[in-house]
Amino acid sequence: MPFVDIIARKRDGRALSREDIDSFVTGVTSGAIPDYQASALLMAIVIRGMNDEETGWLATAMARSGARVDLSDVPGFKVGKHSTGGVGDKVSIVLAPVAAACGVIVPKMSGRGLGHTGGTLDKLESIPGYRIDLTIDEFKQVLRDVGTSIIGQTSALAPADKKLYALRDVTATVPSIPLISASIMSKKLAEGSSALVLDVKCGDGAFMKDLQDARALATSMVAIGTQAGVRTESVITDMNVPLGRAVGNALEIIECLETLRGTGPSELTDVIRVLATRMVMLGGIERDESAAARRVDGALASGRALDVFAKMIERQGGDRRIVDDHSRLPSAPDREPIRATRAGYVMTMRAEAIGRASHALGAGRSRVGDTIDHAVGVIVAVKPGDAVRAGDPLVELHHRGGRNLETAVALCKEAISIGDEPPALRQKVLGEVR
Amino acid sequence: MPFVDIIARKRDGRALSREDIDSFVTGVTSGAIPDYQASALLMAIVIRGMNDEETGWLATAMARSGARVDLSDVPGFKVGKHSTGGVGDKVSIVLAPVAAACGVIVPKMSGRGLGHTGGTLDKLESIPGYRIDLTIDEFKQVLRDVGTSIIGQTSALAPADKKLYALRDVTATVPSIPLISASIMSKKLAEGSSALVLDVKCGDGAFMKDLQDARALATSMVAIGTQAGVRTESVITDMNVPLGRAVGNALEIIECLETLRGTGPSELTDVIRVLATRMVMLGGIERDESAAARRVDGALASGRALDVFAKMIERQGGDRRIVDDHSRLPSAPDREPIRATRAGYVMTMRAEAIGRASHALGAGRSRVGDTIDHAVGVIVAVKPGDAVRAGDPLVELHHRGGRNLETAVALCKEAISIGDEPPALRQKVLGEVR
Repeated sequence: MPFVDIIARKRDGRALSREDIDSFVTGVTSGAIPDYQASALLMAIVIRGMNDEETGWLATAMARSGARVDLSDVPGFKVGKHSTGGVGDKVSIVLAPVAAACGVIVPKMSGRGLGHTGGTLDKLESIPGYRIDLTIDEFKQVLRDVGTSIIGQTSALAPADKKLYALRDVTATVPSIPLISASIMSKKLAEGSSALVLDVKCGDGAFMKDLQDARALATSMVAIGTQAGVRTESVITDMNVPLGRAVGNALEIIECLETLRGTGPSELTDVIRVLATRMVMLGGIERDESAAARRVDGALASGRALDVFAKMIERQGGDRRIVDDHSRLPSAPDREPIRATRAGYVMTMRAEAIGRASHALGAGRSRVGDTIDHAVGVIVAVKPGDAVRAGDPLVELHHRGGRNLETAVALCKEAISIGDEPPALRQKVLGEVR
Repeated sequence: MPFVDIIARKRDGRALSREDIDSFVTGVTSGAIPDYQASALLMAIVIRGMNDEETGWLATAMARSGARVDLSDVPGFKVGKHSTGGVGDKVSIVLAPVAAACGVIVPKMSGRGLGHTGGTLDKLESIPGYRIDLTIDEFKQVLRDVGTSIIGQTSALAPADKKLYALRDVTATVPSIPLISASIMSKKLAEGSSALVLDVKCGDGAFMKDLQDARALATSMVAIGTQAGVRTESVITDMNVPLGRAVGNALEIIECLETLRGTGPSELTDVIRVLATRMVMLGGIERDESAAARRVDGALASGRALDVFAKMIERQGGDRRIVDDHSRLPSAPDREPIRATRAGYVMTMRAEAIGRASHALGAGRSRVGDTIDHAVGVIVAVKPGDAVRAGDPLVELHHRGGRNLETAVALCKEAISIGDEPPALRQKVLGEVR
């Protein structure tokens, strides 16, 4: 069928066939379909939508558009993990060693941060020497020896997704649940895991602002995984408030180490426990949920998870001494507290503004390729619901010589409000889709 | 505003501002807006629609994107005419001389035929020597001296429309009433008339298949004209059946001459009378409708309209002797009648299939630039409602040595059906929008 007829079909609100979608993805990858036709179809998809079947075909076709990682020669059940991204979201860095310590193989390919959300790779790169650019063979060897490895996404995966994403960015065709879920899942499917756990962030600091959209995205991604034969489960977690207390690269690594030691913030530990339990179940290590949860607790309490993390760092060229000596991590020379101007209850600690404050201090990048400062960031001292007195510290900014400090202070003040009555609090785990 | 935000606005179903639309048209004309962004916006417009105000701004901006014809130094009230195109639609060629003979100045820039519908220029070019490529100065001089001139649209008019049309054709963004009406009206507004009469064709052989769409298009175009300060009226006419009896270039010129002499088919004469009456009113020649109609009848009965036509031909380099001697027009060497295989009533004479039959014989072009045969075509001997006996001629094909005759015969047979009861007939004039 001529491609213009495929565009017309979606324009008129009809479903595309598997052949239609395959020819779209093949044509975009080869360049046979010009950008102006691709963008017309993308806009029709944004407005008319796609059903789960179409979305699954799109994800699969994009996954097949380039190289795929073959993990069949790594023994064990491979469970991947993906987060849609948030502020202070260091979950993967703790979760992967925890699940690996429970016997699951956790291959993890991550991205860099862009805008107000941080990236797992940036955080790991604050560890001196840590290499995110392993070859696939090195990656597999670390997986065999340690049980987990976290590296950068290779550009050879899902090239169709890369092309389409670049086009969507300049044609106002980003906000579409089928396109977002197919984009995420195309990369995950190309990474070769047998099962997947997805952390869909929801709230002020996340791409999905409301629970209904977050649930729709989670449901769509689970449907794609299922259609592709990859068991997929999704957990929806709050992102109105930064996760944990640290926002910024090295600061978050310290918090990860504390969490692996059992001294991290309980809300962060709770999210990791829920996700790790799902991974232990999906990996077939335990069949019973409470047994899986106990195994997760054991991996943390015994120090085995921390040990896995230290081994991974070492095997990827990093300085494992940071585990016991946080002073070996980059540290900002200057501190600036922001204090409560009145007594009351913390009503809000808006994640996006805190993320933007950390970004302003130098922790994030505005464009691909910008260099970042691994040391700077924000430490959140209080959370919504906490009672404070006038003069109590609310956040502490870790900055370098006052660089963009005013902007960051203003953003933090905007993020925080104090009221007379304790606010209604929402759970960190908002829902699950299996 | 960044263009991607303008796209997003229409994607979300909101109305664009005049500034948004101006920046779109300016950017498309200069090339500053890449095709992939333009096509994304076009698709959003096709699906979300545009209100009359937006559509008018689009038409005006496209009209201003290139040269505009300035007719202010041609005395008299200039009334333009446009048809959305049909099979056997030779209305302009008769109407322009009739209205000019009534005292209206009728500047007419026409297009060529493409696909199953013919083009006014192709028909006129069957007159030996007739030049459609007058300079604007020559055009104005013929208007001053004769009262009407029919020439080809210059490529300098509305270049934004040309670019957008080419893009729409390959991105499935053609079928949109706002885009169609803005495209038509941008060219009409650039042609410099003070008022406009539009003939919106409706039915099997027209772009608008049903009356609701035809009325929507007519209403949209009238709104654009009104917004731009050009008094515009629209007549909706039937195109389920070819108009008149001749389909094909020289064959239609002969029918035009017969109609100007008062011996043409009454249905064709009736459509011309309705449109000419509107033009006489719009041109301020008469204020009373029945007086205008009488003036039109007088122009035809007195031979003045025929005389205007002959003068126009002569002034544009054509052989005016064709007026009295039809044998000076191209004529096909061969004839093939199709006869009724049974007695009964003619139920259908489908315009599109008859148009395609004429096209197959060589009268039309499939691509811009194809050469055409001015002599060939189809003469329709009967119309829906006529009683026929077995063996009566239904149509006569004028062909050249049997070229594509089989295809044309099959198309004509497909076009015509004969039944036992007389069919319900529909009027030629289906509605008016003022």
